[in-house]
Amino acid sequence: MSRRYADDSLALHTDLYELNMANTYWKDGIHKRRSVFEASFRRMPFDNGYAVFAGLERMIDFIANFRFSESDLDYLSSELHYEDEFIDYLKGIRFTGNVKSVVEGEMIFANEPILQVDAPLGEAQLIETPLLNILNFHPLIATKASRIRLAAGEDAVYEQSDNRLMEFGARRAHELDAALYGARAAYIGGFDATSNVRAGKVFGIPISGTHAHALVQVYRDEYTAFKKYAESHQNCIFLVDTYNTLKSGIPNAIRVAKEMGDRINFVGIRLDSGKLPYLSQEARRMLDEAGFQNARIFASNDLDEHSIMDLKAQGAKIDGWGIGTKLITSYDQPALGAVYKLVSIEGENGELVDTIKLSDNPEKVSTPGLKDVYRIVNQVNGKWEGDYIAMQNEQPNDEHHLKMFHPVYTHVSKFVTDFHARKIHKQIFESGKLIYKQPSVEEMRAYCLQNLNHLWDDYKMIAKSNEEVLRPTEYPVDLSTNCWNNKMDKINEARSRASQLLTHV
Amino acid sequence: MSRRYADDSLALHTDLYELNMANTYWKDGIHKRRSVFEASFRRMPFDNGYAVFAGLERMIDFIANFRFSESDLDYLSSELHYEDEFIDYLKGIRFTGNVKSVVEGEMIFANEPILQVDAPLGEAQLIETPLLNILNFHPLIATKASRIRLAAGEDAVYEQSDNRLMEFGARRAHELDAALYGARAAYIGGFDATSNVRAGKVFGIPISGTHAHALVQVYRDEYTAFKKYAESHQNCIFLVDTYNTLKSGIPNAIRVAKEMGDRINFVGIRLDSGKLPYLSQEARRMLDEAGFQNARIFASNDLDEHSIMDLKAQGAKIDGWGIGTKLITSYDQPALGAVYKLVSIEGENGELVDTIKLSDNPEKVSTPGLKDVYRIVNQVNGKWEGDYIAMQNEQPNDEHHLKMFHPVYTHVSKFVTDFHARKIHKQIFESGKLIYKQPSVEEMRAYCLQNLNHLWDDYKMIAKSNEEVLRPTEYPVDLSTNCWNNKMDKINEARSRASQLLTHV
Repeated sequence: MSRRYADDSLALHTDLYELNMANTYWKDGIHKRRSVFEASFRRMPFDNGYAVFAGLERMIDFIANFRFSESDLDYLSSELHYEDEFIDYLKGIRFTGNVKSVVEGEMIFANEPILQVDAPLGEAQLIETPLLNILNFHPLIATKASRIRLAAGEDAVYEQSDNRLMEFGARRAHELDAALYGARAAYIGGFDATSNVRAGKVFGIPISGTHAHALVQVYRDEYTAFKKYAESHQNCIFLVDTYNTLKSGIPNAIRVAKEMGDRINFVGIRLDSGKLPYLSQEARRMLDEAGFQNARIFASNDLDEHSIMDLKAQGAKIDGWGIGTKLITSYDQPALGAVYKLVSIEGENGELVDTIKLSDNPEKVSTPGLKDVYRIVNQVNGKWEGDYIAMQNEQPNDEHHLKMFHPVYTHVSKFVTDFHARKIHKQIFESGKLIYKQPSVEEMRAYCLQNLNHLWDDYKMIAKSNEEVLRPTEYPVDLSTNCWNNKMDKINEARSRASQLLTHV
Repeated sequence: MSRRYADDSLALHTDLYELNMANTYWKDGIHKRRSVFEASFRRMPFDNGYAVFAGLERMIDFIANFRFSESDLDYLSSELHYEDEFIDYLKGIRFTGNVKSVVEGEMIFANEPILQVDAPLGEAQLIETPLLNILNFHPLIATKASRIRLAAGEDAVYEQSDNRLMEFGARRAHELDAALYGARAAYIGGFDATSNVRAGKVFGIPISGTHAHALVQVYRDEYTAFKKYAESHQNCIFLVDTYNTLKSGIPNAIRVAKEMGDRINFVGIRLDSGKLPYLSQEARRMLDEAGFQNARIFASNDLDEHSIMDLKAQGAKIDGWGIGTKLITSYDQPALGAVYKLVSIEGENGELVDTIKLSDNPEKVSTPGLKDVYRIVNQVNGKWEGDYIAMQNEQPNDEHHLKMFHPVYTHVSKFVTDFHARKIHKQIFESGKLIYKQPSVEEMRAYCLQNLNHLWDDYKMIAKSNEEVLRPTEYPVDLSTNCWNNKMDKINEARSRASQLLTHV
């Protein structure tokens, strides 16, 4: 049986090593040194050409409420045997640092900082795990949702379209938080509604849903079930596949719609199994012949962006999509792989010293130093030319010809003129104080859809794995010359320091 | 910005259609009719030969606390415009029914009821979504953990083995609940510990962890970092791949271990990148030569059951495993696909009427009626011969020769003698009252490991996808003759009713 705590906090929602490291820092008296950590991910999810950021509000909540409760401290003391003075330090700890982040609905790319935490070392270390836990989920769902939005149709991208894309994943999500926050991320990524009522209540997202097979089973036949539903609800979408879609489901839906006439709004039908191109074409024909040209056909059943495109290509007549499992579990890539790396640390004399992590896997080598990320916007057409990572003292807008070069294939380079360099991060916390005013989820969603306009089409292609001809072009995320030189210096320094120390063994 | 509610409950954590259906039942006056729903899944996760049940405690919590809060009711009234009398009904609703379930650590199989809810229709309908949300996650992680446990070594399965398998997934889980409850499910499935401190606190699971790359970066070299860590912690596992594993990480770990001598317990080192067979062999050699034959080598870095077996097959010298992403996201199959189907409903005269859902996909046809599931245990060797789904009035233990036949390939049959038929479900709630006393997570874990002894080895093989020669044998989940006949009757009834009604169109 679980132990239960009325004051359970999220401060212990952390890997043990964070506490052990904080303990070492504290014992060594360096826990208040200024440290800068950056969070980023290394590969584009789903090999997509862009990713959609979401989850900032959840991170803000966590940081703003970061404190150890009495029961947390008791556990750390009695079970993990940390010393009383360290417990006292934890007891008083609050987040007093700075956070910069991209905002929700912003497009993000691999190998650029999404979030920068500039805070006393102990604090910055202790918030790592929950920040990554959030960062590894929300953008994954928002990105998947955006792909599905694109697949559902270009037209639907740019105008509000009456519940055409519905998030149906609550029952298949990884536990309750994922259902709730996944519904929110899907909405930010471009979905129109969710079936999750709590997400509707808490976030103000439009909600959607009518009935399940159980209703038909309860009344044993579709005619009675649809009739009873129609007598109790104005807007009706009848689920027509409990027994036989064409022979019983659709005819009974039509029968009830005719009988009810103006007393209901017969929105349409939902298909949840079977061969959807054929069934939807037949459904369209039957509805049209019965005079219900405006009745819409919704489909569900393990759909994703690929099946939507395939269904459209094969002539399915489907007007709206209910997307569950494949979206909410991010089925074809359920992890983003975001990491949180120390890029700079205050030295003994108060100066900041940039740090690096090497690796046998070259893509795991971190980029040291305090940096800003600029989105290079073409002033002529508004399209994005790429992202430019510069050291914090650089001013790319002062440059007439900006040199951008690939951080791995450094000979791949271009000069950009007639651009505006927009910083993609906003200041969220300043000295522990929340200074960022969050927009509504509607605004985040609108911002995300609007951002799609700034991406060239070849960043918006949707490929299945190994479908080379459709793989999107890699969006440039380039280092400034200073940033690149700094990274090379730190690699060399770290290598030589590591080998020097060996002479002492 | 989110709307926040001090009294936010989980009663609204539901698909909208559940509320719409409950509304129809209520308006029609049938919301208190007795109904029986069963939850099951259709395909074995990871094509594994068995699955491990977990999550009951979470379901019990939800059901026992099921009630709509004031803010829930306000939302339903003001935003969804349900009528006041329906809101009154919801306001008073509590779970008053019966629940039978398998217990945590029990082995479960596709196409058998895991959970049976026998309750007034409105209540049974309104708890569907959260029950499935829980059921679709916990067993997935427990099953994945059990596979990894088997891959990590048979010996480790049967005796408590000091943190050989550590769950490291908090940062990669799908939001916070999945991290917390995933750690618990992994433990029940056979893991030894988790890095998640909150899971340690809330569930009493052993926790594990030392330090990350950040510690080395903070001190800029491994010697200083390991030394500082050793001066503040008794048990030391040094992470050796921040700069160069063989040239700097391991030599510095050895240097510090020698310098500290008896003042620390040098547990070992952790490898987090690079080619693990070679690195671990070299690490073993270096540690042995330095006199640290008892120091252990831990590995992490996107490991799962397949990479563990491959590493062992290729001579890696690894003593313990930290498993993150691939376990906590159930990476190779992130959804279980469990469903909740109405199997019986009280008719107008108070009698129970068995119900069925047909489908163009034959595996989606439900099995009607109130059933019990028996595990048929061979009395000679204790092995399980299969599961036997019988109608609730049947007594398989009274049979001398029990006929078991495949529910699809009905000619595949066998007669079993000298068996004991054990009901796999326990009564959890009776008339709304919790009557089941939950064991500790240690007991659940021990029960799970012990259950592995009852499975023939060919149900415990671990195959990669398409690895036919290793695919486990399908464990028999058979219907009794009565149960099968009842299903056939209901299929025929539903078909003929559906076609009769059409004559009215």
